[in-house]
Amino acid sequence: MEEDAEKKRKKTADILKKLGYGVYSEIEKSENPYFSIPTRGLSNVKYSEEKRILTLGSGLSRRYFLNVGHVRKFIQTVAMAALSKELVESDKHTSLRSAFYQIRRTIPGTKIDVVDDQTETNKAIEDLELITDLTREQLHIDANKSGSVAGEVIIEDRGDVIDWSKMGSGGWAIPSNVEDISFKEVKAKFVIYMEKMSIWTRLNEDKAWKNLHCVIIASQGQATRGIRRLLQRLSREHGLDVFILTDGDIWGVYIYSTIKFGSIALANASDKLALPEAKFMGLTMDDIDKYQLRRHLIKFKEVDIERLKQIKNYEWFKKSKAWSEELDKMEKLGAKVELDAFTAKGLSFMTEHYLPEKLKEKKFLD
Amino acid sequence: MEEDAEKKRKKTADILKKLGYGVYSEIEKSENPYFSIPTRGLSNVKYSEEKRILTLGSGLSRRYFLNVGHVRKFIQTVAMAALSKELVESDKHTSLRSAFYQIRRTIPGTKIDVVDDQTETNKAIEDLELITDLTREQLHIDANKSGSVAGEVIIEDRGDVIDWSKMGSGGWAIPSNVEDISFKEVKAKFVIYMEKMSIWTRLNEDKAWKNLHCVIIASQGQATRGIRRLLQRLSREHGLDVFILTDGDIWGVYIYSTIKFGSIALANASDKLALPEAKFMGLTMDDIDKYQLRRHLIKFKEVDIERLKQIKNYEWFKKSKAWSEELDKMEKLGAKVELDAFTAKGLSFMTEHYLPEKLKEKKFLD
Repeated sequence: MEEDAEKKRKKTADILKKLGYGVYSEIEKSENPYFSIPTRGLSNVKYSEEKRILTLGSGLSRRYFLNVGHVRKFIQTVAMAALSKELVESDKHTSLRSAFYQIRRTIPGTKIDVVDDQTETNKAIEDLELITDLTREQLHIDANKSGSVAGEVIIEDRGDVIDWSKMGSGGWAIPSNVEDISFKEVKAKFVIYMEKMSIWTRLNEDKAWKNLHCVIIASQGQATRGIRRLLQRLSREHGLDVFILTDGDIWGVYIYSTIKFGSIALANASDKLALPEAKFMGLTMDDIDKYQLRRHLIKFKEVDIERLKQIKNYEWFKKSKAWSEELDKMEKLGAKVELDAFTAKGLSFMTEHYLPEKLKEKKFLD
Repeated sequence: MEEDAEKKRKKTADILKKLGYGVYSEIEKSENPYFSIPTRGLSNVKYSEEKRILTLGSGLSRRYFLNVGHVRKFIQTVAMAALSKELVESDKHTSLRSAFYQIRRTIPGTKIDVVDDQTETNKAIEDLELITDLTREQLHIDANKSGSVAGEVIIEDRGDVIDWSKMGSGGWAIPSNVEDISFKEVKAKFVIYMEKMSIWTRLNEDKAWKNLHCVIIASQGQATRGIRRLLQRLSREHGLDVFILTDGDIWGVYIYSTIKFGSIALANASDKLALPEAKFMGLTMDDIDKYQLRRHLIKFKEVDIERLKQIKNYEWFKKSKAWSEELDKMEKLGAKVELDAFTAKGLSFMTEHYLPEKLKEKKFLD
């Protein structure tokens, strides 16, 4: 696996080198080098019914070196590609913030800086992802990390063997880049991703992952890119089912939607991040009566109602009878319910009743 | 150590039991039970020059059972003490949010709920901390966890032996409650806490903790209570120096100030959280020229200037000649500089130059 990681890096470096040589040889031939970049933004984002993920359409735009309106961005993209190649070859990683400082310099013979602001380098990184079809992680530029994992899995990462079932009360801290970790032993049968760290702490103290033979993962709110890749790798490479455990509200549905179908902002990376096989294990409107949670309803605020209206209009939810009904019920109820409310029935009620029942009944909204 | 943890729990449970018996016996004797609670708020918070931490003054208020204005809060405090006793005895932990659901119930024979809102339970927990002189962690009520650690330390936590030097790229995820972890082997000579996870990731990839024989810890921004306790335990129980590594700005100074002296909101817990021995290892105004970082200055915004003015007025900074001068320089410069800027000089510049030089010169603001 170490070797695999090295091979992958070499492949990435080769793509970047080829990009550089292309530009160089066109300049040598006195031609006008350009990059073809898939168009971003809503107009070019499509929901693929076949793949069940959000993808970029075929819209392309060209960015030329010899064009006053393009040249600055062209140079920024080349500078980012050069930095990335260096990082990949030396097997080092940088952050979005540091990438800005690393690129920032005055163009020789001028008083012009390559970049003035991090928004420019962020944009250049996104462009490079689109041009090369590599993810930011493959380009060795990492976002902030967040989140914990525990469960019946042993991995190897940078030469360390790490047993996720022996991580005490804290868990293993998930890095932002999980491309190079290798799985040594996967006893777990499935994965639960939860949106709340407090729920993770509860399940970890209950050793739910041991009793249910699974992996538990949480960050706080939206799953990071690192976590989404980790879920995807556990699903694709080891056939584990992935369940998304959220509150019974529209924000939980959105977290599920992003993990499963991808997001508009990252439609280009759907293939590497989205997980159409993911299943919803969150609180449904029917669960409210089933588990007598009615006294713990929290009335919607204006912002909840607005978000619900937006999400009801998502193509993939509109096309699903089950989800359309669920979101109608939610709208009619006008209130949400939190997973934490289960503790009113006993601290471990969720571990001992809710989760086993969901798994047994296999009634997952899809 | 397992036994120690058990003994500690028994002691906590005994304090809570005694509290309950006290109330009970006063009711039996037809007396009016009350709690004595140290007054919170700015008026009763004092800076102790001797201890060099923020502490609560001697102001006390009484809360009576038989007082229409007090009874609701009195009952909430008793309910929280009962929940806490149950948690401690069963060695389970709950979250602030779940504690609210666990306490929430209708008082028998009435239509009145014990609590309507989490702000009430949060307040009851704070009161219980003050009444019993126990921390929330000792009462088994945990805040959200966040943060990672790596370094030359081996711990035991819930029966798992965890080697912080074998945690790959992620690190060990720090739990919110570190009271019960035991240190098996501490080879590290000191600890660096940094405010930015991206800096931690940089130092971890550089294996800085290995080369410098230390422990590196980060969350994002302010240190959590779990981290502050961890820093304190490593300092008090194992004599490790604790260094705070921040950007050269007023927010970094504030993070340092909170770790070192405590905060107004948690003045009651200073003894258990503050760390007057902590040393500032962040970017100073003199470092800007020393490391030629002038081109990376970021001009202050209005909010930076206001915060700087507030913090300059903190008693402990005013009494320190070195800090007064530093904050004057910062005000005059009107700009900040980030640790990330070091990467402009090479990705590992901080690990290879800045940190070893700071450690060698031992010029820490105090």
